[in-house]
This record gives sequence, C-alpha cells and structure tokens, in this order.
Amino acid sequence: MNKPMFDRVALIGIGLIGSSLARVMRSKGIAKEIAISTRSEKTLERARELNLGDVYDLDPAVAVTGADLVVLGVPVGAFETVAKTISGSLKTGAIVTDVGSVKASVVRQVKPNLPENVHFIGAHPVAGTEYSGPDAGFSTLFENRWCILTPEADSDPEALAKLRAFWEACGSQTEVMTPEHHDLVLAITSHIPHLIAYNIVGTADDLESVTSTEIIKFSAGGFRDFTRIAASDPTMWRDVFLHNQDAVLETLGRFSEDLSALQRAIRWGDGDALFKLFTRTREIRRSIIEIGQETAEPNFGRDEIETPAETVKMADEK
Amino acid sequence: MNKPMFDRVALIGIGLIGSSLARVMRSKGIAKEIAISTRSEKTLERARELNLGDVYDLDPAVAVTGADLVVLGVPVGAFETVAKTISGSLKTGAIVTDVGSVKASVVRQVKPNLPENVHFIGAHPVAGTEYSGPDAGFSTLFENRWCILTPEADSDPEALAKLRAFWEACGSQTEVMTPEHHDLVLAITSHIPHLIAYNIVGTADDLESVTSTEIIKFSAGGFRDFTRIAASDPTMWRDVFLHNQDAVLETLGRFSEDLSALQRAIRWGDGDALFKLFTRTREIRRSIIEIGQETAEPNFGRDEIETPAETVKMADEK
Repeated sequence: MNKPMFDRVALIGIGLIGSSLARVMRSKGIAKEIAISTRSEKTLERARELNLGDVYDLDPAVAVTGADLVVLGVPVGAFETVAKTISGSLKTGAIVTDVGSVKASVVRQVKPNLPENVHFIGAHPVAGTEYSGPDAGFSTLFENRWCILTPEADSDPEALAKLRAFWEACGSQTEVMTPEHHDLVLAITSHIPHLIAYNIVGTADDLESVTSTEIIKFSAGGFRDFTRIAASDPTMWRDVFLHNQDAVLETLGRFSEDLSALQRAIRWGDGDALFKLFTRTREIRRSIIEIGQETAEPNFGRDEIETPAETVKMADEK
Repeated sequence: MNKPMFDRVALIGIGLIGSSLARVMRSKGIAKEIAISTRSEKTLERARELNLGDVYDLDPAVAVTGADLVVLGVPVGAFETVAKTISGSLKTGAIVTDVGSVKASVVRQVKPNLPENVHFIGAHPVAGTEYSGPDAGFSTLFENRWCILTPEADSDPEALAKLRAFWEACGSQTEVMTPEHHDLVLAITSHIPHLIAYNIVGTADDLESVTSTEIIKFSAGGFRDFTRIAASDPTMWRDVFLHNQDAVLETLGRFSEDLSALQRAIRWGDGDALFKLFTRTREIRRSIIEIGQETAEPNFGRDEIETPAETVKMADEK
C-alpha cells in the first residue's frame, strides 16, 4: 500500500456516493483517517455498524476539524447550510469538494460561505444506482465511470491536481469543465431522463383505462426500464430539479418540441419521419457500448439468456 | 419427450420472436416439423445455417401448406399482404395466429382475408430484447413472460385452448383480453416508453450546446437506459405507431399533460409536488420486482458490483 493521499478525509453525508467513497478509500488506503458526519442519528449509527469510518459525529463542524479533504455529499438544496456550519472549523489549505449532481448552484451556495484560506472545487461523479443510503454503496462504483471537476478561473491548480488524483485513485476517469457547462450536459444525460421516467410512471399510475396490475404484469414491453430511475431518491432529485431549473427547462423545451413533431408524424401517418428517427438513434447506443459505458448484453444482461449457439446445439442433440 | 402438439408449424417471419419460437419448439419437441418462410433470401439462408427449421421457402403460401399452426411474425404493416398470400393454401381447421405488438389492426388486416374454415386468434408475447433477426432469438425468451391472447366473441374455444397450451409449452404465462384493450395496455407499457426513448435520444443528438461525445461519455447518469429501447428495430416500431395510432395519441396526450405540470412545478419551485410524485413512483417498481418481471439488482445487474458486505470485509482485512 502506498502512503495515504490524505491524513484525514471528512465525509459530510454518507449515502450511496459517500459510503462508496468510504469503501474505496478504505480498500485502497487513500486516507489515514475517515471522519463521517450525517444529519440523521440512525444513518450515522448504520455507518458505524458498517465500519465505514474511523470517527463519527452528528456535527459536521467536528468532522471537518483537521481534515485535508472535505467531501460534501448532501442533497443539492442543503449546501448553503452545510457550508455555513463547517466554515469556522476548516483547516487552512483544506480542499473542500462535493459530489452534487448540479454544479453552478452548489458553487453559489458554498463559495461565499467559506473562508479564503481553503480551496473549494466542485466535482460530480457520474455514477450511481437507483438505491440510496449507506448500505447501497460499494467500492467499485466509480470504476470506469467519469468524474467531472468544475474548477473556476481562480481555482488553485495544485488543489485541482490533488482532487483529480483523488478521483482517479477512487477508480474514476476525470474531465474538467465549467459549472455552467456541466449543468447543461447533465440536464440531457441525466436530469431529463429522470424527469421523463418519473413522469411516465406517474402517468401510468393515474390511468383509469388500464389497471396497475396490468401495468406491472406487462411491464417487460419497455416500461420496466423506466421504473429503475424513477425509483431514485426523491429528496435528491427534487433538489436537482429546483437547482438546475434553467438548463432543465431549456432542455425539456427541446424534448417536448421534438415529441410534438413525433406526435404529428404519428397522427398524419408519416412513416418515413418515424423510420428516419428510429434508425438514427441506434448509432448513439452503439457508441456508448463501444466506449464501455454500457453493456452489449440484450436487456442489460438482466435476464439469464442462452446464446443462440448454445440453443441450436441443444436442438441438434435432441 | 411427449407427443408433439402439432405436426407442422409454419413460421412466417424469422426475426427475434420467430427464431425464439423455432428454438423453443425444437428444444421441447413441440412440433414434428417446422416450416420457415421469410421475405429476404439472406435471412432465410441464415435461418437454415442456424438449423432453425425443417423446411424453408421464400413463398409463405408454400410454408403454410399442411400446417396445423401458422404463426405470423412480420411487422404490423405487412399483415394484410401476408394474409392474402397464404389464404388459398391453408389447411382446413388450421390455427392462424400472430405475434404482433398491436392487435386490433392485425385483426382488421387478417380476418377478412382468411377463409372461414380456419381459426384466427391474435397473440402477443410481451417479451423481447433490443436485438432483431434470426441470430437474436433464444429458447428461453418467453419464460416467466406474459403472452396476451386476443380472441373475439366468435373465436373457437378449442382453438383458443390449443393456442394457450402452445404458449404455455413455450414457457409463457397467458392472459386473455380484447384486441382493443390490449392496444391500450401496450400503449402505456410499451409503445409510449419506446416513443419517448427514441425521442430523447433524438433530442440529445440534435443539441448544439452539448457534444455527442459528452452525451456518450456521461450517459451513465441515466441516458444510457433509454438508448436500449431506442435501439429497437425501426421497421417494427414505425409500424407499431402507425397501427396503434389512437391509443398511442391518447396515452401520449396524458403523458404530455403530466409533463407540462411537472415543468410548471420546476419553474415555480414547487418542491412538494416533485417530492410527492418521486415518492409515489417507487412503489410501482417494487411491485414489478415482486412479481418477478424485473431484477432487484442495482443498475439491472449490468455492472459487476460487489455487495456491501464483501466490501466491508475487504476494508477490515487490509
């Protein structure tokens, strides 16, 4: 094991991302000491049971004391409060970062509330599952996933390099962009997908002409795919939409405009327009599979599927 | 091996569904003889290479000759033509069925074009993957999935019972409903999900503010889930939308109305409305998992994920 990168890392919030960071830091020896703080006594107790850290405190100001790296992993609506709470307890030169899904709002909430002798640089690991809480994390969550760092013009290059090295040690690939551009990118790659998934599940639930039982039974026709991200943490996602309002509304406008055009093509029987779109969309998936961000297995590999070759062999042998 | 249920089954179309039927019929000895017909010479040759049947003919009229069961597995727009082509060659008492994703239109296209001495009953196995063609099929595709049968008031009960037994022998659970109700159920559980998946992938592809490379790299935030069904067969799906127009437009209207309400909630910062919806949607997924139509594994189980227990053990051992 190499020398730990940090003497003390404070994790404020110990959900899916925080607890995954705790696990990978432990398994790779990235921090000499891990301090954990979270608002709920029950969650803190669970983190202790899971042996995720070395010290535990309900007060984030205590947890950050003496920390070289502070990772804020709370819902995007809670950053201002947390920043104000820890502000007076931060060590000179500490790197403060976060794992929020929205970046411009987080910068606005955190930066004015921190002292000048610490470095704040936002970050967003684009990784996760539909589960939340300290039990949901796992040490390989960040492997082969991207972490986007969003420094600003005046960010300290050394702090940025260190933060980058931290995420790479955790298994991530890293990319740098502005907070504003991050929010646009994530609006289309994450926020709108979640919004329409939540929306269709709600629409289905409200229909009078089709029963819930029917929706559940026949969900393998495509619907079930959407229920996965529509099962994501409600507090986290409420805050994402409230704090990335502009980019979400702008991108949603584009989505709705395109959907109206499709609706019109269906109404007027314009098969060519449908066929053209349905052909074009295959290419993007192919690229996502090629760069290793998605499996090529049918149905995400979730069903146990025989390969055609095996099946044919069975048939021959009968 | 029991006695085969049918002496001769004709598969008209040998794509994902047709070739899966061929494989399960072979492996379970459901048919004494399988006759395969498909429009493309290349596909027919591939079916022969894969050893999916016993006889092969480009002319569906030849394939159905002497068949006790005829399964039409062609795009929903092609049924009228196929029905007219096979009409004069069908054996008295033969059961003619299909596997189309739309049912009322298929009944309208097929029934008036068949002789009175055969039984037509529509069916729809709610099963599939994003892949198509004879190589994509596998013998377990129908296991633990539902097949919806859509007889009409004048359908022969014996033919229905036999068709039901056939699908159950292929691994399906079966349910009976009217063609019209089927089309409403599938509009929300399958057709609208496909439409909005195709749509968001198209929207993403068209954005100027975010590059394709960024969309592909950061797709793990949710977008990649949608690309799976947006990679489905374009011809099949064009025909689905053109032939289930009414139910699709009606359900799409509901979806868009709900999405507008969500958009408004985001614009006016109505966090409670968002939180309420995001909480309600979790329940449906839970039910889908409970009845075994979906995996409980995080991310559909597509990533190789350590369990938390294993991870914590690793940490302890270091």
